[in-house]
Amino acid sequence: MHDREDGARMYALIEELYPICRSITGDGVRDTLARIERQLPAPLVRSEVPSGTPVLDWTVPREWNIRDAWIADASGARVVDFHASNLHVVNYSVPVRARMSLAELRPHLHALPDHPDWIPYRTSYYAETWGFCLRQRQLDALPDGDYEVCIDATLAPGHLSYGQLVLPGESPDEVVLSTHVCHPSLCNDNLSSIAVATALARELAARPRRRWTYRFIFAPGTIGAIAWLAQHRDVVPRIRAGMTLTCLGSAHPFTYKQTLAADTEIDRAAALVLRDRDPADQVIAFFPYGYDERQYNSPGFRAPVGSLMRGRHGMFPEYHTSADDLGFVSPERLVESLAVVRSIVDVLEGNRRYRNLAPDGEPQLGKRGLYRATGGTAIPDLNLAMLWVLTLSDGKHGLLDIAERARLPFATIRVAADHLRDAGLLAEL
Amino acid sequence: MHDREDGARMYALIEELYPICRSITGDGVRDTLARIERQLPAPLVRSEVPSGTPVLDWTVPREWNIRDAWIADASGARVVDFHASNLHVVNYSVPVRARMSLAELRPHLHALPDHPDWIPYRTSYYAETWGFCLRQRQLDALPDGDYEVCIDATLAPGHLSYGQLVLPGESPDEVVLSTHVCHPSLCNDNLSSIAVATALARELAARPRRRWTYRFIFAPGTIGAIAWLAQHRDVVPRIRAGMTLTCLGSAHPFTYKQTLAADTEIDRAAALVLRDRDPADQVIAFFPYGYDERQYNSPGFRAPVGSLMRGRHGMFPEYHTSADDLGFVSPERLVESLAVVRSIVDVLEGNRRYRNLAPDGEPQLGKRGLYRATGGTAIPDLNLAMLWVLTLSDGKHGLLDIAERARLPFATIRVAADHLRDAGLLAEL
Amino acid sequence: MHDREDGARMYALIEELYPICRSITGDGVRDTLARIERQLPAPLVRSEVPSGTPVLDWTVPREWNIRDAWIADASGARVVDFHASNLHVVNYSVPVRARMSLAELRPHLHALPDHPDWIPYRTSYYAETWGFCLRQRQLDALPDGDYEVCIDATLAPGHLSYGQLVLPGESPDEVVLSTHVCHPSLCNDNLSSIAVATALARELAARPRRRWTYRFIFAPGTIGAIAWLAQHRDVVPRIRAGMTLTCLGSAHPFTYKQTLAADTEIDRAAALVLRDRDPADQVIAFFPYGYDERQYNSPGFRAPVGSLMRGRHGMFPEYHTSADDLGFVSPERLVESLAVVRSIVDVLEGNRRYRNLAPDGEPQLGKRGLYRATGGTAIPDLNLAMLWVLTLSDGKHGLLDIAERARLPFATIRVAADHLRDAGLLAEL
Repeated sequence: MHDREDGARMYALIEELYPICRSITGDGVRDTLARIERQLPAPLVRSEVPSGTPVLDWTVPREWNIRDAWIADASGARVVDFHASNLHVVNYSVPVRARMSLAELRPHLHALPDHPDWIPYRTSYYAETWGFCLRQRQLDALPDGDYEVCIDATLAPGHLSYGQLVLPGESPDEVVLSTHVCHPSLCNDNLSSIAVATALARELAARPRRRWTYRFIFAPGTIGAIAWLAQHRDVVPRIRAGMTLTCLGSAHPFTYKQTLAADTEIDRAAALVLRDRDPADQVIAFFPYGYDERQYNSPGFRAPVGSLMRGRHGMFPEYHTSADDLGFVSPERLVESLAVVRSIVDVLEGNRRYRNLAPDGEPQLGKRGLYRATGGTAIPDLNLAMLWVLTLSDGKHGLLDIAERARLPFATIRVAADHLRDAGLLAEL
Repeated sequence: MHDREDGARMYALIEELYPICRSITGDGVRDTLARIERQLPAPLVRSEVPSGTPVLDWTVPREWNIRDAWIADASGARVVDFHASNLHVVNYSVPVRARMSLAELRPHLHALPDHPDWIPYRTSYYAETWGFCLRQRQLDALPDGDYEVCIDATLAPGHLSYGQLVLPGESPDEVVLSTHVCHPSLCNDNLSSIAVATALARELAARPRRRWTYRFIFAPGTIGAIAWLAQHRDVVPRIRAGMTLTCLGSAHPFTYKQTLAADTEIDRAAALVLRDRDPADQVIAFFPYGYDERQYNSPGFRAPVGSLMRGRHGMFPEYHTSADDLGFVSPERLVESLAVVRSIVDVLEGNRRYRNLAPDGEPQLGKRGLYRATGGTAIPDLNLAMLWVLTLSDGKHGLLDIAERARLPFATIRVAADHLRDAGLLAEL
Repeated sequence: MHDREDGARMYALIEELYPICRSITGDGVRDTLARIERQLPAPLVRSEVPSGTPVLDWTVPREWNIRDAWIADASGARVVDFHASNLHVVNYSVPVRARMSLAELRPHLHALPDHPDWIPYRTSYYAETWGFCLRQRQLDALPDGDYEVCIDATLAPGHLSYGQLVLPGESPDEVVLSTHVCHPSLCNDNLSSIAVATALARELAARPRRRWTYRFIFAPGTIGAIAWLAQHRDVVPRIRAGMTLTCLGSAHPFTYKQTLAADTEIDRAAALVLRDRDPADQVIAFFPYGYDERQYNSPGFRAPVGSLMRGRHGMFPEYHTSADDLGFVSPERLVESLAVVRSIVDVLEGNRRYRNLAPDGEPQLGKRGLYRATGGTAIPDLNLAMLWVLTLSDGKHGLLDIAERARLPFATIRVAADHLRDAGLLAEL
């Protein structure tokens, strides 16, 4: 069965990417892009933007790479070790090699008192500092005394890396699906979405026809999207719809975060799909915090890019901690997420507009074999869907409008429209 | 008292029409129209559309008339008999005369397992078949063996019949009230509405003036409305408001189903009347299933025709069964329904637009005898209504707008406007 | 502390004004205006409109002044005495001196059966009559027999008095704050609002700059506002926003009553301030009854004047009774009310519109010292406010729009905008 294969393949990709120490620049991102590419039917277009390049209001920072990091006690034993978890180092820490007392070290140590067994994930991209993250229990157990600390990292001129896959469609207008690839060993955030996006790209590449052009962007958060925007100004006006994909592997209900405009096609497509899925799913309004939808929706671009997530950033306890591990995501949940994204894409693909060619009264569906024969009390959904499509196909309404108003699943409306079109009752506009 | 007379007369008409076997064509409809006409102050305009006439996307079918139908057991005893209830025959059955085993007969038998004492109502207008409807208890009691079946019906070139009464008003713009007359022995659906429409027609005919032209249509469902539309294309643009009237004799709360446009004058008038009546009453959105509002609202016509009902089709158990009998409707409920329809009509008649002739500040109502003299804490509704009419009579708002916003009954707003107009404070626009 | 001083000063003004017998005309109003003026940094502009002057649809009535009034029993003892409470006389009573039986007197006596210890407040401005108001207990205790009644009042050609203070701002467009000054010994209604308006006027006069011109109107209800409108037609088009202030001294939650247009700047500013204050506060729709917002919103003027109140007229038992006394209002509540009015004014003053000068993507706040350095899970409100201001400063949205959408307090949004402007990221439009 397809779903099982899909789930296994997505989960395996997460397992493969989990150990890599990613950041907003560096070899971890390059390695990640290379492994994503192996899952795709076509090469990723890779971009390498040199440090110091001005991108919109920002500048591409120096590239960060790390080889080792540890804290050793007086006996020389490593009490904190980067090789046990790459979360142990504050991401983008400057190199350090020093001996200091616990008191001096303490301001550089981050832990979670409320979750004493979890390692927090911290970053310091734009302030030059260094630090370690560790379990509260580890921290509490450190005896006074001197410690040796080492962060064997380099922060040097290099590049910012991102990758893209573009699947051309009948229209040059684009659907953009964007995932951040800058987080280290965190599974839900955001290996889950990398896996879902990769699976969807595979699927769409295999389709005989695509109405829209699909662009998958795998880029570091914020600076990656900003670099992409700076280098693809010509593409932005062609963005018809888009989503950032985040945290799609956990068991939480789905949340779709609207574009700033709130009522664009992607907003309505996503809301429709969630409406018919689970009452716990929700649609929330845009706010200028979260993921790269912030950049796409900024005043200079106003691209209609929403965000699809399950766990919401900052709203599940495992967020940005070592508890966001391989056990926190599952093939089943990835398959559900893939299905939701696919359904949203299918609305965009299928949202056509027709004109009813027999607009005066209701056409006689029975004589065309499209209506149950014996009058009773109820009406099957497909028949009702046909009546809705006929009623609203006046040039002003597309199938998405009709599915919203009919409160019927989009797929039912689409099949109804296909039947009516095949019977010569509809012409596409 | 008026109401009692009205109720008795409406119920008596239902009693008179109940035994007749109606269908979408045939003598039952003609007989029904003739009996309706006797209650009216003017003749019904009768239309007879020949079988085979193309009407919009449809063709008028052959005319169906039935004289007798029965199932007899091996002993010759009639175990199902059309003369006991015309619901026993699937409406529009083709003629049949045959002998067959119970096993062969069974596919032609319809019953209701959940309501074993009720006979269902079934139709097969456009598929050539035949059948019988019977109580589940009857069906269960049939012994194996051979049966003689007879449906002595004719399905032959003839006509489709419908009738209309037009009451001219000051304006040629029309208010259309349409009832289906194709159901056999079912009281709520739709003899109740035939009775209410007839009573209202009598009332409106007696009024010294009518602002709008009123058109009462008594026609078979679907094909009747389609034939009417095909033959009255010129009338459609003059339809200012309309309702199909259905199932108005039972004890259910009222439901008004909106036009497709949802915010036309009839929608707002009906919503206003129900708002002030009973919290159990409701307004529901249009959907393209139900009664002939489907045809009126189709893309080629888009006539603002809603639907007023009490029991909603398919949503009360007695619907389309023999339990929808004379005991299921009552004079009291018919009187209530007549009052609601009359109130809606009164909103349409009274929804005038005025200009406040003393628009600067509040005119001094006291010096015109329109205001209570001593200041206290509360204000009578009529005074408040006058203040609302003065406030909103700026050329942009009619009395319906004002009643909606003031949350006061339309009648109060109308009386207030009359007082203000008589005092020279308002001019009609 | 400021608040304590403000509260004491407002309450002291109420104490000073409480004993005065005010009406819609007469020396009580003049005395009140003189005492208000002493609290202000600039003279009130006083208007005296002669009796008989036509004002809009009304005519200024004769001036009413009262010196004494009483009912004496057979022994000559005063059983009702104006000097005990000026509420004892129906306001605007014609003079009377007569001897009559209790039965003859009774139609002239008003009491409150449900509140037997309270004296009601009654008026009869435009119907020539006289009367007394008394406690139900007093009324019940009156023995049969003859009574001497005296109302030593004059109703004679004179003037209608009102006062204004105008504080010029950078713009000639005006914010109007209007309070009725016609009620006698009633504290909440409306000495409380007189005190709040006076305190606010003092505060605004002391500000180094005002964006808008502020006009404080102290005028008798209805006829006073009508006279003002008749004499200030030129000002009306410059009214950008306004409120009538009523009943602001009691412990009730706040109610803001919208302008007729319902979505003007004052409506949104007031709603925003109450949204962030207390869930018990509410915004209600305009209705053409209440205070002088009726006149300002009439079709000839349509000035955007709402109404701010705590206790709602007619909806608290003490309304228009002697229970609306010095104990019914308090310095603390007056301070709260002043704060709410001040906050609303501050929204009007601060509702500026900016253009984001770095509109492409999110500008790098960190390099400008405007963003916390280390990435964690939450974001401070001020940072979020900056992101909202940047996102929506596209020329179409002002800070009020942004505060509404961000669901952040206006003050936070305003501070965020100040920071961004100071950093060169915003230009005012």
